[in-house]
Amino acid sequence: LGSNSAETDSQTEWTDVQKKIIPWKNSAPSLDLEMVFQDRAAKLGKSNSRLIVVASLIDKPTNLGGLCRTSEIFGASALVVGNLHSIQDKQFQHLSVSAEQWLPLVEVKPSQLVDYVQQKKMEGYTIIGVEQTAKSFDLTEYCFPEKSLLLLGNEHEGIPANLIHHLDVCVEIPQQGIIRSLNVHVSGALLIWEYTRQQVIKQKQQK
Amino acid sequence: LGSNSAETDSQTEWTDVQKKIIPWKNSAPSLDLEMVFQDRAAKLGKSNSRLIVVASLIDKPTNLGGLCRTSEIFGASALVVGNLHSIQDKQFQHLSVSAEQWLPLVEVKPSQLVDYVQQKKMEGYTIIGVEQTAKSFDLTEYCFPEKSLLLLGNEHEGIPANLIHHLDVCVEIPQQGIIRSLNVHVSGALLIWEYTRQQVIKQKQQK
Repeated sequence: LGSNSAETDSQTEWTDVQKKIIPWKNSAPSLDLEMVFQDRAAKLGKSNSRLIVVASLIDKPTNLGGLCRTSEIFGASALVVGNLHSIQDKQFQHLSVSAEQWLPLVEVKPSQLVDYVQQKKMEGYTIIGVEQTAKSFDLTEYCFPEKSLLLLGNEHEGIPANLIHHLDVCVEIPQQGIIRSLNVHVSGALLIWEYTRQQVIKQKQQK
Repeated sequence: LGSNSAETDSQTEWTDVQKKIIPWKNSAPSLDLEMVFQDRAAKLGKSNSRLIVVASLIDKPTNLGGLCRTSEIFGASALVVGNLHSIQDKQFQHLSVSAEQWLPLVEVKPSQLVDYVQQKKMEGYTIIGVEQTAKSFDLTEYCFPEKSLLLLGNEHEGIPANLIHHLDVCVEIPQQGIIRSLNVHVSGALLIWEYTRQQVIKQKQQK
C-alpha cells in the first residue's frame, strides 16, 4: 500500500513535469517562462545551481544542442536561447540527446539581451562575458559568484560592443595553440565546469 | 637587411614545418612518428606540455576533429588516433579548423593500445582512463602528474575491460543531470583543461 502510494506520487510529479515542458510553444512573454522552468527544476529536485547560461548570440544548432546537453548534465538552472524554435532543429536534437526535456529553457532574443542582463543584475546575478578583452580575467584566476550568468559570444563576432558595456566582468580561457580559438560549446563547457568545480569545493569546505 | 634575414629564417622554419607534416602519409611504423612530431612541436616552441591525448577508441569524425582543435589550443604534446586517414574526413576537418597541421598526431590502432600504454608507462607516463568505475577518482579531487596520458573511451562502449586493467587510474567527471553522460569531446576537453589549469597554477607557485 505504501509503495502504491509512492508510485501515484511519482506519476503525479511526472504529469506535472510533462505539463511544464509545454509552455515554450505558447507565445507568452519570454521572461516569464523562466519562473515556470525554475519551478520545474525545483520540483524535480535536480539542481540547486544558480548558474544561467545565455546562448542567445550563438547561431549553430550543433553548438546550441551541445550546450544544452552539457548545461543539463551540470545542473545549470537555465539555458537561454535566442529562439526556442531552434530546439526543433534535427542537428540540435542530435547533439542535445533530449536534454532539452529536462533543462529549463528560456527564450531571450538578441535584441532583448541588454534588458535581460540588467534584470538579472537586479536579481543579484553577476554578468560574466566569455570573451577575450584587454581587461578579461584569466579563467585560472577567476572565482565565480554563486549567482553567475554566463554570456557566450557569437561564433564569428563574439559579444557585440554594446553588450560588453553591460557586463560585470569578462573571463577568458588561456590558450597557447596556433589556431585561433576554442569552439564556443567547448568554451562554455569549460566555464560551466569551472563554476561547478568551485561550488563543489565550497560545499565540501562547509561540511 | 636585418629584416630580410629574419624573413628568410622564418621561411626556412615554415618549410621545416611543412616537411614535418608529411610523414603520416608514409607507411612507417606508427610509434616512431611520435618522435618526429614531438621534435616538430619543440621546434615550433609552442608546447612544453607532457600531455598525450589518446582518442584511438573514438569513432565519430566530429568528436575527433573537435578534440584535435581543443588539444592543439591547450598545447597537448600529441593526439593519438586509431587511423590517420580519419583526418581527411570532411566532418573532421570542419571541426578541427586545421589544428591537425599544428598538433603532433600519432596513429595507434585499438589493437595496439595495450602495447602503446605499456610503452608509455615505461617512459614515466601515468595512464589515466576517462571512465566511470567503482574506483574512479572524482575530477574535482584528482591531481594530474606532469606526464599524463588521457585515454578516452568509445562513444558507446567506453573503455573495454581488457584495457581498464592496464590503466594506472580512472577519473570521472561528477555529473548531476538526468541524461546519461557528457559527449566524449567535452569530457576530453574538461580533463585537458583541468590538467592545464593545474600546470598553470604549479608554474605560478614556482615563480
